[in-house]
Amino acid sequence: MSLGSPGPTLGVVGGGQLGRMLGEAAGPLGVEVVVSDPTPDCPAAPVVRDQVVGDFDDEAAIRDLGERADYLTFEIELADPDALERVADATGTPVHPAPDTLRVIQDKLVQKRRLGEAGVPVPAFRAVDTEAEFREALAELGYPAMLKAREGGYDGRGNVPVESPDDVTEAFAAIDGPAMVEEFVDFERELAVMGCLGDDEQETFPVTETVHREEILRETVSPARASPAVRERAREVTRDVLAVMEGRGVYGVELFERADGAVLLNEVAPRPHNSGHWTIEGCHTSQFEQHVRAVTGRPLGATERRVPTASANILCDVTGRQKVTLQGVDDALARDRLALHWYGKREGYRLRKMGHITRPAADDGRDPTTLLEATRAARDGLTFQE
Amino acid sequence: MSLGSPGPTLGVVGGGQLGRMLGEAAGPLGVEVVVSDPTPDCPAAPVVRDQVVGDFDDEAAIRDLGERADYLTFEIELADPDALERVADATGTPVHPAPDTLRVIQDKLVQKRRLGEAGVPVPAFRAVDTEAEFREALAELGYPAMLKAREGGYDGRGNVPVESPDDVTEAFAAIDGPAMVEEFVDFERELAVMGCLGDDEQETFPVTETVHREEILRETVSPARASPAVRERAREVTRDVLAVMEGRGVYGVELFERADGAVLLNEVAPRPHNSGHWTIEGCHTSQFEQHVRAVTGRPLGATERRVPTASANILCDVTGRQKVTLQGVDDALARDRLALHWYGKREGYRLRKMGHITRPAADDGRDPTTLLEATRAARDGLTFQE
Repeated sequence: MSLGSPGPTLGVVGGGQLGRMLGEAAGPLGVEVVVSDPTPDCPAAPVVRDQVVGDFDDEAAIRDLGERADYLTFEIELADPDALERVADATGTPVHPAPDTLRVIQDKLVQKRRLGEAGVPVPAFRAVDTEAEFREALAELGYPAMLKAREGGYDGRGNVPVESPDDVTEAFAAIDGPAMVEEFVDFERELAVMGCLGDDEQETFPVTETVHREEILRETVSPARASPAVRERAREVTRDVLAVMEGRGVYGVELFERADGAVLLNEVAPRPHNSGHWTIEGCHTSQFEQHVRAVTGRPLGATERRVPTASANILCDVTGRQKVTLQGVDDALARDRLALHWYGKREGYRLRKMGHITRPAADDGRDPTTLLEATRAARDGLTFQE
Repeated sequence: MSLGSPGPTLGVVGGGQLGRMLGEAAGPLGVEVVVSDPTPDCPAAPVVRDQVVGDFDDEAAIRDLGERADYLTFEIELADPDALERVADATGTPVHPAPDTLRVIQDKLVQKRRLGEAGVPVPAFRAVDTEAEFREALAELGYPAMLKAREGGYDGRGNVPVESPDDVTEAFAAIDGPAMVEEFVDFERELAVMGCLGDDEQETFPVTETVHREEILRETVSPARASPAVRERAREVTRDVLAVMEGRGVYGVELFERADGAVLLNEVAPRPHNSGHWTIEGCHTSQFEQHVRAVTGRPLGATERRVPTASANILCDVTGRQKVTLQGVDDALARDRLALHWYGKREGYRLRKMGHITRPAADDGRDPTTLLEATRAARDGLTFQE
């Protein structure tokens, strides 16, 4: 496949931070990006060719994107697979990953079933349509357990922990719609692997350890502080997940490592993922460049890790939705090797992801714990002002 | 200094490949970029917020840029220092590097004089206004020598080699305007160092070896294959050059290494430079991020080299000015660790810089010669089709 000027155009449904970082990665490859997003002047807008303003299920907007683009993809699971499928048919513009894979992933119950049937180790789970079913399932799975909305949840929204029989009625009422319940996995640590399907090839990135609080990712470090055997098992499970996925692109695979060394699938995202942001500085090819390469049908790049690398999210901490500014930026940028990624979101609210920092190891601090702590300390120096 | 959303806007006079790569580096820092360039839809356009169409000396366009931007800079020496100075005064938008430094650099004779007076080692040179002066100068400097237009030359344009007295009349006629003549430096190799002035701090990047043919940069490799003493001397000369420069930003310093180990200044560019493109993959902070940090008043980043790294320019080879496509891209991208940078220029012509590739060393090939040859071979697999 040759490369002209202008190069091919990639249409991306969604223009948040993932769309922004896809745009930043596409330029060097000669790929122009157009995003569709409901927020005018979305985070991706200043770094891409153009934005179409439209909801993630606005078929006219997706059609506009399909007509302008040579390839279509999405950076958010809220993208509408039916609309994507119809637009791909009508415009002849291929969409990756496959809309059907997006459909499977959107429904957490279907996702777990499909992966479990394919031999991917998953926590025990049951479908929950009524409170009675919920109680029955809990009798089998025991407490604590996690009730999950089948659709639409992210960053912990749509997940309700159930500690005891007293919580059941309230938890069930909190989930408004079809749900599933899952055994609580008493994990030693959480891991993530970015996998990628290319054209007749596939790659997995080095295993990352992820640290969550309030079910939101806070920090990552790679290599994960797990044994080599567990890390190899995490990549193996990722390859098994990839075997179920259809269509080219990066897939973010979130995993639990149990105390006995077993690796269980938590969730799959059919797109670059927060737990892979460290690859921008940490790997020879970033997850974003890899996704662009994959979706546009180019060969995949080397996923090898350059050096141990940690990242930390910059989460907003103000009350209410409002304009904010970040303080302490100069102190952060003056730290050795620290890279800043600011997403340019016009308003902040509590726990909103506003940016992240990444820190590759220096020769004197390659130990993951030291690196993670230094990165966390650097991030803690960044504060928001209303 | 805090960071909001949108972040500060950087106005860049010039939107060629350097403006494009500045744009790619600015996004993560939360800096929005607007460029001015005479070519509609210039290379930077698809990856920045906006383009103002206007010549490099179009004061209305620069004024427009100054009004929209919080900081002004330029990526081409053809920028008009008088217009920049007036716009900075009128709009209060600071411009870096200082317009006066640009003025000094634009005139190669003034540049050499100023640097020579400051103790920077420069080749012997003389001003040339008449053919008689030219002959007198050659009698002193000897043959071969290089006649250079004082203004407007780049990539070898405006440079005429003079091998013998027979060339004098023709060479003088070829340079239409004020000129200077310089002794021919019989160099062992050519070197380059990117230096950067920040706010009360400065940094130099690791020394690069540059390979030119027909006076156009073809390949670079860092570390340069020079002795540690010569490399240290190159950084020392760069620091002496920086001492003469005014205003924050990256300065590209091109040097000659003579057989006796002496290091002489060839030329200074008040901007990121082709011989520093390898820093995108090769250093913790790229020359482009460093320039954005410097110009917007942020702390400078770490300039340390990650691993030995080579780069090779992709020069167009067609006759006449026309649309072209690049062939062999998939083979190139399939090579381990190879990074592509395509500039998106709408038309090619012979020796036009259309893109570049970069290759950081793998563990089995850290030797600069091996690395340079592998990178050259990868580049030679890329060909143009009309």
